[in-house]
Parts: sequence; C-alpha cells; structure tokens
Amino acid sequence: MNIRIGMGFDVHKLVEDRDLWLGGIKIEHTLGLLGHSDADVLIHAICDAMLGAANMRDIGFHFPDTAAETDGIDSKILLRKTRDLIAQKGYRLGNIDATVCAERPKINPHVPAMKKCLAEVLECDEEDISIKATTTEKLGFTGREEGISAYAVVLIEKD
Amino acid sequence: MNIRIGMGFDVHKLVEDRDLWLGGIKIEHTLGLLGHSDADVLIHAICDAMLGAANMRDIGFHFPDTAAETDGIDSKILLRKTRDLIAQKGYRLGNIDATVCAERPKINPHVPAMKKCLAEVLECDEEDISIKATTTEKLGFTGREEGISAYAVVLIEKD
Amino acid sequence: MNIRIGMGFDVHKLVEDRDLWLGGIKIEHTLGLLGHSDADVLIHAICDAMLGAANMRDIGFHFPDTAAETDGIDSKILLRKTRDLIAQKGYRLGNIDATVCAERPKINPHVPAMKKCLAEVLECDEEDISIKATTTEKLGFTGREEGISAYAVVLIEKD
Ligand SMILES: [Zn+2]
Ligand SMILES: [Zn+2]
Ligand SMILES: [Zn+2]
Repeated sequence: MNIRIGMGFDVHKLVEDRDLWLGGIKIEHTLGLLGHSDADVLIHAICDAMLGAANMRDIGFHFPDTAAETDGIDSKILLRKTRDLIAQKGYRLGNIDATVCAERPKINPHVPAMKKCLAEVLECDEEDISIKATTTEKLGFTGREEGISAYAVVLIEKD
Repeated sequence: MNIRIGMGFDVHKLVEDRDLWLGGIKIEHTLGLLGHSDADVLIHAICDAMLGAANMRDIGFHFPDTAAETDGIDSKILLRKTRDLIAQKGYRLGNIDATVCAERPKINPHVPAMKKCLAEVLECDEEDISIKATTTEKLGFTGREEGISAYAVVLIEKD
Repeated sequence: MNIRIGMGFDVHKLVEDRDLWLGGIKIEHTLGLLGHSDADVLIHAICDAMLGAANMRDIGFHFPDTAAETDGIDSKILLRKTRDLIAQKGYRLGNIDATVCAERPKINPHVPAMKKCLAEVLECDEEDISIKATTTEKLGFTGREEGISAYAVVLIEKD
C-alpha cells in the first residue's frame, strides 16, 4: 500500500509568564504553555503524526527535551525538520486533520492564520491542513484549564 | 491524493433531567448529556471528523451553540447537513470508525441500532459505519461518570 | 474504496503486584496494569483499531472480560485472533501507528523490542508498525500515574 496513516497526541501545561504558541502563531492569553521548546502542542501533535505515519519514531526521539539546541526553540523549526525527515524517506503529505482541546482562549478565530502559517512551513496547500477546536465542557484537565491537548491524524504517500 | 483523512473528538457532561442520545438513538439511563443541541457526543465526533477530512472547519463553526435554530436540535439533522456540506465539495464517505468512552450505561447492546440509524441519515451502507465502546476503568472524568467522550476517524474520497 | 480506516483507544489502571505488559513485552516497573487479561493496553488499542476498520465490533465483543478462557490471557493471543478475524473477512493490514501515554516508566527504550514482537504476532513487516510515547505532563490520570492509555490508528485493505 502506498498510503500510510499516522496519529499524534500531545499535552502541555498552562502556566503564568509564558507566551501561548499554537499552530505556529502567538495568541494573546493570560496563560501560556510550558515546555522545553515553545510548547506548541498543536505542532507537536502534527509532527508526531507525520513521524508515526513514516515509522520514524516520535518527536521526543528526534528532538529530546534535554537537548540544549532545542531549548526555547520555535516549534515551526521542528515541523520543517519533520517534513524533511519524511521526505528523505520518500514520503509526502496527503492531508492533516487536527483538533485542539482548550477551554480558553477561543481557538476558532485563529484557525485561518494557523493554517496559512503551517502551510508555509510545510510548503503544502492550505487545503491539506485542517484545524478544529473543541472544549471538554469544563471536564478533565483541559476543562479545568490546567493544560491544552491536541490530536492530529495524517495520510502520507510514497513519492 | 483522492483519499483524505479526518478525526473528531467530543465531550459532553452527564447531568440529571436530560435524555441520553447516542448515535442517533435514545438510551435509557439515569443521566443524560448536557448541551445546546441534544448533545449526541458520538454524532458530533463523526460530524467533526467528516468536516475535518473535507477541510471545512468544525461543528462549532457551522452550528454554533449560541444559535437559536440549533437550540435542542436533533443531532441527526446536523449529521445530514454535514453530509450535504462535504457532498457539495465533491466528497463522499469511505468508512467511519468511532469509539464511545463511557463507564455506564453499557453501549455495546445498542451498537446495531446506532449503526442502522446513522447509515439511514448518511445514506450509506451499515458496513461503512463502525461503533465501538470502552470504559476508562473508572479513571478520569469519563471513569467518574461526569461525562461521556467520543472519538471518530473517517476516510473520504473525491467523487 | 478498498482502503479502510480504524482507531482504538484503551485505558488500564496502574496497581501494585501486577506485571507491566506493553506491546507484547514485559517491562520492569514498580506498578503493573490491572485487567482481566494481561491488560496490555497498547495491544488492546491496536486490536480495537483493526476490528473497527473491518467493522467487526470491538475487543470487548469478541473477548469479554467475563469469559473464563481469557482470564489472565496473553494479549498477543488476542492480537493474533484479531488478525485472523479480519483476514477471514478478506482484509490485510496496511500500517499501524500507535501512541502510549504514560508518565513512567520510559517507553521509548522498549519500542524496538515491541515492534519486533508485534510484527511476529501479526506476521507483518516491522516497517508497518509504529509505536510512539508521550507523557501528559503530569496532568490527568495518566499524569498522576493512576493509569496508562494508548491510541492506535490503522489502515487495512481488501485483499
Ligand atoms: Zn509537546
Ligand atoms: Zn458536542
Ligand atoms: Zn484493555
């Protein structure tokens, strides 16, 4: 089969005194995501989905959160490297569909800007990147605004 | 690539004095799901997966929970509209696979009726709609019976 | 469409005095997963994804946790039976991508052994089985080490 599937799931904690980066853009909010990189949970889920589809391990394997060179790194750099990794193995992206789970802030107004940003990083059509948002109705850690989670699924195909 | 992937995730709170609608059917239970519509968490996850695959935003974008016309609405109407939306863009459904996470009630006895119901709404073969159930072993908000969550993945293809 | 998608999600509780089985191998840890079978949460998610893709119900339907013959069973036997079930319906595996959510122990060092083990059970290429790991950053029940969860997605195709 020339078509392969991948999925990613990521979580980061919401804390004070951090910027909130999601889908490659900075969003105004009273809290930001904590992490070794910029903690862009949506990009991380997409990277994991792409790496998984290509059977190339995961984001923690390629970009360990103990490495000095990824300290505070812009996750768009990780996404571009991920794209290069799967391209080296002969794969190109079909489409991505992702869901961000956050009680606040509202994600939907930012979706067009995120899609534009990620399509530029991946050098693909915006039509091939879908981003959705949902709350968890105040339930669980995302509902209590302790963190944000993101899911992504992708199809890739052999060149 | 003519084949596209989508995924959906949805959560609703379990409360007293509400009916429990799941997969288009009413299930006898002491609690029901809270929401602006009938809160059918399984249908909502499927709608989001279909919209995501077609890159047509999400259920909250098309059917906002502040709109008077969706107040108390049967989610089967939203599912039919979702099917029409992706059809207008030239897509038809491949298959759906969904999982409902609920500690109680038992979902599995109702799966055949749900599949039949959703296949009628989507005008597709029951063979293309799979519904599974799992508990979260009393862990998390679904385990504490505070809510029910649902995942769905779909493939669609260009006509 | 000859290609079909499936997804699985499973959760088991971490308790004392149980072995920890994940991806078909035993991992040294102070806690193990609780369940009727060996509670291999990763294999269970994969079984559910395969059954869902083939529209053959779920793991609880085929291997009820009340059955004497599955008491303490090695989940690799369930995975082999799942493969046989979908093969009887004329399907074979494309690829699997899975994610294990666990705060501890570290999963990544064990991924190569898991892939090798599962490829033998499924009689497929290791290249078609991807296993990833993530923590939930100490959030939620996996973050509090009350349990481990696993996601899996698969593509299958008609022979
Ligand atoms: Zn991350
Ligand atoms: Zn909903
Ligand atoms: Zn299980």
